[in-house]
Amino acid sequence: MPDIYLHAITSVCGSVVEENDSASLPLTKEECERLVSKVGVERRPLAAAHETTASLACDATSKLLREQDLSCSEISALVVCTQTPDHLIPGVSSRVHGELSLPTDCLVMDINQGCSGFILGTQTMAGLLQSGAAGEKAILVNADTYSRLIRPDDLTTRTLFGDAATASLFSTRPAGLKLLYSKSFADGKGYESFVARSSALKQEDACGIFMDGPAILTFALKVVPAAMQRAFQDLRLSSDDISKVLFHQANSFVIGKLMRKLSLSKEKVPQNCANYGNTVSASIPLLLSEIWTDLKPGDKVMTVGFGVGLSWGVTVFEAL
Amino acid sequence: MPDIYLHAITSVCGSVVEENDSASLPLTKEECERLVSKVGVERRPLAAAHETTASLACDATSKLLREQDLSCSEISALVVCTQTPDHLIPGVSSRVHGELSLPTDCLVMDINQGCSGFILGTQTMAGLLQSGAAGEKAILVNADTYSRLIRPDDLTTRTLFGDAATASLFSTRPAGLKLLYSKSFADGKGYESFVARSSALKQEDACGIFMDGPAILTFALKVVPAAMQRAFQDLRLSSDDISKVLFHQANSFVIGKLMRKLSLSKEKVPQNCANYGNTVSASIPLLLSEIWTDLKPGDKVMTVGFGVGLSWGVTVFEAL
Repeated sequence: MPDIYLHAITSVCGSVVEENDSASLPLTKEECERLVSKVGVERRPLAAAHETTASLACDATSKLLREQDLSCSEISALVVCTQTPDHLIPGVSSRVHGELSLPTDCLVMDINQGCSGFILGTQTMAGLLQSGAAGEKAILVNADTYSRLIRPDDLTTRTLFGDAATASLFSTRPAGLKLLYSKSFADGKGYESFVARSSALKQEDACGIFMDGPAILTFALKVVPAAMQRAFQDLRLSSDDISKVLFHQANSFVIGKLMRKLSLSKEKVPQNCANYGNTVSASIPLLLSEIWTDLKPGDKVMTVGFGVGLSWGVTVFEAL
Repeated sequence: MPDIYLHAITSVCGSVVEENDSASLPLTKEECERLVSKVGVERRPLAAAHETTASLACDATSKLLREQDLSCSEISALVVCTQTPDHLIPGVSSRVHGELSLPTDCLVMDINQGCSGFILGTQTMAGLLQSGAAGEKAILVNADTYSRLIRPDDLTTRTLFGDAATASLFSTRPAGLKLLYSKSFADGKGYESFVARSSALKQEDACGIFMDGPAILTFALKVVPAAMQRAFQDLRLSSDDISKVLFHQANSFVIGKLMRKLSLSKEKVPQNCANYGNTVSASIPLLLSEIWTDLKPGDKVMTVGFGVGLSWGVTVFEAL
């Protein structure tokens, strides 16, 4: 089976920036300062009225094609990971495929996953590329506009999430980062801990995103270290062999708790949620794209997703 | 790379049956007779008030586990293909995972695809199993409740679609049907030919399913024969080598047109849309499960999906 490589990542953010300050939110200056000091989110990009998940996904993909000097005809698969599609029928990937005039001989698919969606998407890309279903070059898009589902008066949730899209080029051709490991986990018994009520076909009294923050924190502190430990064992590596650990950018409070539990230094755990908030499945590739040029050959990067489902997962890449 | 096998399929239908007759529809007896004579759909299962896509998906999966005498702990991946999830966040697969107490060491994913979703799902299962991401046994669920999106007064669409779920067991262990071929295609420029307006996050003046029947028919008559021809070429087989061709059960009018264009006999092209209508991505596995026991070792079955996206695809299986 061929090895899988991540060649490049591009990102596009919602074009409106909402500051977590008293000018933007119905909170006092002191309340805003306490909030920012706790969760570390200073501002968040939000989709403007004319922007949708599909438009962000199209923009990120078209930027990737341009920056990588790729012709549309080279793309054999397009997978869009989103939980906030424009329509239930068809998927966002169909819109991107049409707008960018990708070839008909191209596997096109939406997958639904949240904050562990980059891990799941990477595993799916690897499977499709290794089995021959996705040719030599395939694109994974992670795109969401959670702001459209969050109730504006739900300030706990509103102040955490940002809207963004990333496009990642995967290939069987050696370049960029080599995928060493990917593994996804699930616990559907936690379905109700993070659910968007009345968001699709189930009719309910309530609507909007309901997030049981304490339950998610307890869950993350339990499963994330165990999944990382399993990756170290499977790869016969230790934490010292990893140059950077990229956690899903839930917020600095959660990441700080994980860092302390795992005795990880600030240098090893980059963060960018101050400027983006939690951009769901785009958060890890967005952060990875920011640290990309700092990586030296042989550097190993672990990415760790966790969230809605409940679901979690780990990938490890090595820079060529 | 290991070969992939389809071990078994189970199905569950919506528990309400709507007849395409004048007692059930605001149409005269003559209008109903003309309709049934043209599209071949006599009745359709619909989800009852207490049923949802997730409940049908749970029932089909639990039936599969029971009938195949499988323990939950044996399942390493669960992929649910649906366009009508209960919630946008989380996916239906999370609900099934939780209800059936599947192991945490299990890849769980929703994919969004319509009438070609069994082909896309099969390719995805094959990729995940062949790359090692899905262990030895994995389940593909195809589940939809389109009736929840169709406007009741849109009789053209309402009289065609049924609600159902299937669960298919895929494995790297030889048994049942061996997967010889799978290939998916897309043309996103046909996005608007079949779209459910205001079904997710895009706010529009209209709501409900809009289907451009003539455009879909023209598309199907063009791409389906070409995709089948390509499969024959890739496999170095001819139409004579195929025992059964299972078309997506759009309706008898479309299937009849395809049969005439391809000079296929009634014996070779089984249909069951009279009793189910178009059950979206469940339609092919539902039909395959009905003809399963008639297959003799060496029989080759081609399945052909086409529809929303636009998208299409072909698989070929061989009975062991």
